[in-house]
Amino acid sequence: MTSSLHDSSVRGFASDNYSGVHPEVLAALAEANGGHQVSYGEDQYTQRLGEVVNGHFGPEATIFPVFNGTGANVTALQSLLPRWGAVICATTAHINCDENGAPERVGGMKLLSVPTPDGKLTPELIDREAWGWGDEHRAQPLAVSLTQSTELGTLYTLEELRAITAHAHSLGMRVHMDGARISNAAAALGVGLGEMTTGTGIDILSLGGTKNGIMFGEGIVTLSPGPADSMKYLRKMNMQLASKMRFISAQLLALYDGDLWLDSAAHANAMAAKLSAAVAQVDGVELVYPTQANGVFAALPNAAADALRERFRFYDWDRAAGQVRWMCSFDTTEADVDAFVAALREEMSALQG
Amino acid sequence: MTSSLHDSSVRGFASDNYSGVHPEVLAALAEANGGHQVSYGEDQYTQRLGEVVNGHFGPEATIFPVFNGTGANVTALQSLLPRWGAVICATTAHINCDENGAPERVGGMKLLSVPTPDGKLTPELIDREAWGWGDEHRAQPLAVSLTQSTELGTLYTLEELRAITAHAHSLGMRVHMDGARISNAAAALGVGLGEMTTGTGIDILSLGGTKNGIMFGEGIVTLSPGPADSMKYLRKMNMQLASKMRFISAQLLALYDGDLWLDSAAHANAMAAKLSAAVAQVDGVELVYPTQANGVFAALPNAAADALRERFRFYDWDRAAGQVRWMCSFDTTEADVDAFVAALREEMSALQG
Amino acid sequence: MTSSLHDSSVRGFASDNYSGVHPEVLAALAEANGGHQVSYGEDQYTQRLGEVVNGHFGPEATIFPVFNGTGANVTALQSLLPRWGAVICATTAHINCDENGAPERVGGMKLLSVPTPDGKLTPELIDREAWGWGDEHRAQPLAVSLTQSTELGTLYTLEELRAITAHAHSLGMRVHMDGARISNAAAALGVGLGEMTTGTGIDILSLGGTKNGIMFGEGIVTLSPGPADSMKYLRKMNMQLASKMRFISAQLLALYDGDLWLDSAAHANAMAAKLSAAVAQVDGVELVYPTQANGVFAALPNAAADALRERFRFYDWDRAAGQVRWMCSFDTTEADVDAFVAALREEMSALQG
Amino acid sequence: MTSSLHDSSVRGFASDNYSGVHPEVLAALAEANGGHQVSYGEDQYTQRLGEVVNGHFGPEATIFPVFNGTGANVTALQSLLPRWGAVICATTAHINCDENGAPERVGGMKLLSVPTPDGKLTPELIDREAWGWGDEHRAQPLAVSLTQSTELGTLYTLEELRAITAHAHSLGMRVHMDGARISNAAAALGVGLGEMTTGTGIDILSLGGTKNGIMFGEGIVTLSPGPADSMKYLRKMNMQLASKMRFISAQLLALYDGDLWLDSAAHANAMAAKLSAAVAQVDGVELVYPTQANGVFAALPNAAADALRERFRFYDWDRAAGQVRWMCSFDTTEADVDAFVAALREEMSALQG
Repeated sequence: MTSSLHDSSVRGFASDNYSGVHPEVLAALAEANGGHQVSYGEDQYTQRLGEVVNGHFGPEATIFPVFNGTGANVTALQSLLPRWGAVICATTAHINCDENGAPERVGGMKLLSVPTPDGKLTPELIDREAWGWGDEHRAQPLAVSLTQSTELGTLYTLEELRAITAHAHSLGMRVHMDGARISNAAAALGVGLGEMTTGTGIDILSLGGTKNGIMFGEGIVTLSPGPADSMKYLRKMNMQLASKMRFISAQLLALYDGDLWLDSAAHANAMAAKLSAAVAQVDGVELVYPTQANGVFAALPNAAADALRERFRFYDWDRAAGQVRWMCSFDTTEADVDAFVAALREEMSALQG
Repeated sequence: MTSSLHDSSVRGFASDNYSGVHPEVLAALAEANGGHQVSYGEDQYTQRLGEVVNGHFGPEATIFPVFNGTGANVTALQSLLPRWGAVICATTAHINCDENGAPERVGGMKLLSVPTPDGKLTPELIDREAWGWGDEHRAQPLAVSLTQSTELGTLYTLEELRAITAHAHSLGMRVHMDGARISNAAAALGVGLGEMTTGTGIDILSLGGTKNGIMFGEGIVTLSPGPADSMKYLRKMNMQLASKMRFISAQLLALYDGDLWLDSAAHANAMAAKLSAAVAQVDGVELVYPTQANGVFAALPNAAADALRERFRFYDWDRAAGQVRWMCSFDTTEADVDAFVAALREEMSALQG
Repeated sequence: MTSSLHDSSVRGFASDNYSGVHPEVLAALAEANGGHQVSYGEDQYTQRLGEVVNGHFGPEATIFPVFNGTGANVTALQSLLPRWGAVICATTAHINCDENGAPERVGGMKLLSVPTPDGKLTPELIDREAWGWGDEHRAQPLAVSLTQSTELGTLYTLEELRAITAHAHSLGMRVHMDGARISNAAAALGVGLGEMTTGTGIDILSLGGTKNGIMFGEGIVTLSPGPADSMKYLRKMNMQLASKMRFISAQLLALYDGDLWLDSAAHANAMAAKLSAAVAQVDGVELVYPTQANGVFAALPNAAADALRERFRFYDWDRAAGQVRWMCSFDTTEADVDAFVAALREEMSALQG
Repeated sequence: MTSSLHDSSVRGFASDNYSGVHPEVLAALAEANGGHQVSYGEDQYTQRLGEVVNGHFGPEATIFPVFNGTGANVTALQSLLPRWGAVICATTAHINCDENGAPERVGGMKLLSVPTPDGKLTPELIDREAWGWGDEHRAQPLAVSLTQSTELGTLYTLEELRAITAHAHSLGMRVHMDGARISNAAAALGVGLGEMTTGTGIDILSLGGTKNGIMFGEGIVTLSPGPADSMKYLRKMNMQLASKMRFISAQLLALYDGDLWLDSAAHANAMAAKLSAAVAQVDGVELVYPTQANGVFAALPNAAADALRERFRFYDWDRAAGQVRWMCSFDTTEADVDAFVAALREEMSALQG
């Protein structure tokens, strides 16, 4: 009954979740179809996914597929915390800004957010909220959450990650990584997924998928012992347990059992680098943050941004400051970037002319 | 990288969510792919889905796609209730038995459950918990939740539904229908989806999809005014907002924009009827509930059930009472039923011989 | 500015919380007054209360004073449960009927309630809900809550308590006692508080005070290891941490550091026994439950109950069944009982005449 | 059994909740004792309290007595918010710092906190978080909470309050005042309680009591229509409903039915002013905030603070910055201040000598 209702040739720079699904992912869904498989995760695709995850993250790692990133983040953090726990995060963290309070309302946790210059926590920044253990009046800081790559398109180096986990652990806190764009980070740093997580002391990971070319599905990956025991209950009560889980697992297999994760992310990063370099040459437009992954943050006059937006969809980041965000995706082409930059030049000229 | 890891010729009678995806649904996903579409529901598939839903449920209906049935139920009920609300439901309701307390823990509601003979509420049964309004010590009963078809494979007639909604409304309560298997109910009753819901006074519906041949996705359908205003916030904070929503909507379109919902459900019902009729002829096996939709509940010796289970997967329903559940799906074949009944006869003979 | 606004000679049979405060409690408040004491529990009254509690309940016991019974119950149960836990209780339990869903809404737990003939759980009744461990779809039954004396005025014997705790512990569940009227139970059974709790294997206790002649304040008493470590945080986040805690502790000391708890409870029980015996002689009135503590439950025509209520305040228990509840308190006098019985006889005669 | 366990001649400067109870309050408790009164708020003291509250706050005001300040704040804010609501507050607000996440965990709300120079919000500071309505990804800012007098001992003028409420209302937000120390503010400003709240457009108030010489108890006072309808249910489910409510109401009557609130607060303020003036003369000690109510915030060497603390109890405010807090209470005497200042001089001299 359905047929294509949209123009599949249109792409923009609004978000990596405006894009659709990589063809290999679609093929994987078809291959996983047919016959009956045990629901709720006892299927052969989820079993195989476990092995692939061990390959990336080490023998202690366990993956729990869930529906989306908010579900992964809240459930992962909940597994680290007693009912009186709090999470130290950057003010700009997705959990703090874009989840409508799900961490607080569903997870029952308090977020202790810290302003940062570039979306990145440091031991010093963490210390601004890392105090008050034993004082029952204070929500107890028992976890740190960081995002890699960050919501501002920046990256933690492995040394920076190690410094954070060492500091947090020395204070009795565990560390969660929101890896919605973990592939972009690993591709940019030229390191493996496990090297960047298990290898740096991360305790639990929200393993992204949707923003890197799958249809739906993320994974909670436990890297240190403990949280895995409670995860199956938390996932269910948090309404994140998929009945036909084989279809999440098959997608994550398409992405992570091989190099599709890396190739897609490296491509998106390259397109962002190309865009960033070109933008830097446009008079009146300035980069706000270094372009280290697949997002470009720029400052330009709102009037130019609005005119440009008529031609390519994207979001304001900070309207008052005249800042916008341009995201590249696995399916962004060089021609897309060229056309976009040309349009940007036109609108800036029109404005200045 | 992925290839088929399972034997797609194997089917059982464990659950309608052991089955995979109808080919038309898979095709719809491919058609919805490509290019960029606005995320979080402002895409053309979700827009079209709204029109299709209006066709089924009337001009006041609004659909909010979500990930799964638990998410649909909890979010729908939350939209009907103030923070101090309670929900009257059957003891056997999915929300009471199979959601690990998500209604209480995430939804913050209290369930007032009532034992029933057949999984069906009546005005009289509702009255056992419908009291105490204005008394702040009592969680206030402000909603009724019923399941159609029920968890026991039984059906409400339209008259029964009308009697419940009239009674509930007269007491100031609103009525939620858990329609995880609503298509099976409509097919069995030979009525339209809207006739059975909007037409009987139901206020809000969890519109099923996954159990009738889609990959993932259900819809909250608001039928009376009010809840729709709060739904977008509740859906997000309950972690049920899909970023690439076009892929849920495309599946629901494949199902509901045409007759796939009806054909698949009617087929599953027919297979259950065939199975039920055959089972009734087997010595030592008895039907526990009338077979009105796609589930067959039977009593037989546990030893026979266990032997049969070695050959076809299914679940005990009440081990102590020797009761099992056999579910038929859109992909159950007549040959599947014949083979299963033959196996059942063999195991019963082996036991009795 | 204030002066007595009420007639302090009026007493009824509505509830043991309609009564005021025992003079010794009032004196204790005055003695605890003056000067500065560390707030939030590091005062000398709370310290002394800990010693008194050890005297009653043994060296492992720790008390955490809170404001009220609902706060004590919810916080105590929370300390026994992971986020996915459930509590088996009688359908008539205060936590299930009279706390407006606080266990679910604030505590995040699910109650699995079981109908009972007399408000008392048994191992067999517990087994109706004690199943499904390891199945993530089911809220995990990890605690049992019982009330001593029960909401129906009945009592568990020590043997019955031991049978329940042994059964629960063997299944990996812990046992909470709602002791809002624990003194009435101990007085009726002629046993010590510790003998009835620590001695029978109870893990955690809500130690009553308000219903036995104090102004406000109950105590959570941990009897087995574990919950005490989390209690100070749970108490604070559940909004049950009193700043001037010395005034709760001083009241509990007035009650429990000596025999006031016992004398007051024994008196209330005696008045209930006197009332019960007299009521049993009145034509047309029947006792519904045995009178084992300080509550009398009787069946009589609603018209007679309503007429009687014009003269003495009390509550219907089950209006449809014509059942009422008459509670005796530490300050109920023999004359009160005589006058009440006389009035009852008059109203029954008027009705029957 | 109890007798005085503490030295009632010792006072310090730690907190206004280290102090005990004003003799008039103790007398009021005795007068409210005796006989039976309807529990849960239908007593004559609570009724009279309603009239007194109308006298202060106007005919639309309704008071709901609760146990403590955290309970008042969380319940009041909850009554202003849908489930997806957020509250803008100062970073230093009690609800943000000292309630162990109860607003988030029990209230289910998100706090959007804003750094301030002196604990006071302004329309401009509010605007830093007042945005994003209609965007379901953002917790919706629908309430502002301010504290009067603030946690830093500072005061809002009436003009400042009016500017905030006008701004908040124009944006569709309602305004809560945490009035744990409202009497100190009114006394310092020389205005009436209603003039400062109802008169400036405050929507709901946490009316303090405990910090101004009562034993326990605060009141939620609804000033604008709406929240009062839901309050009785919220209060109960939040475990803040006192059974013997007459004893909270009698205390609040002792305080507010007459001038005790004013006299006690004015005295505490005067003692703080005296202390502040004297401290300003001590070499090496500096005032951190202006002393506008009953708290003095000073910076001095930690070594001196620690030595002084051996003689008088008080708290560090910001150890790293060498800041301490000295609170005065209704029972602080001139001699207490003199002795404290003398000791401060000694310790500073010892340090500097």
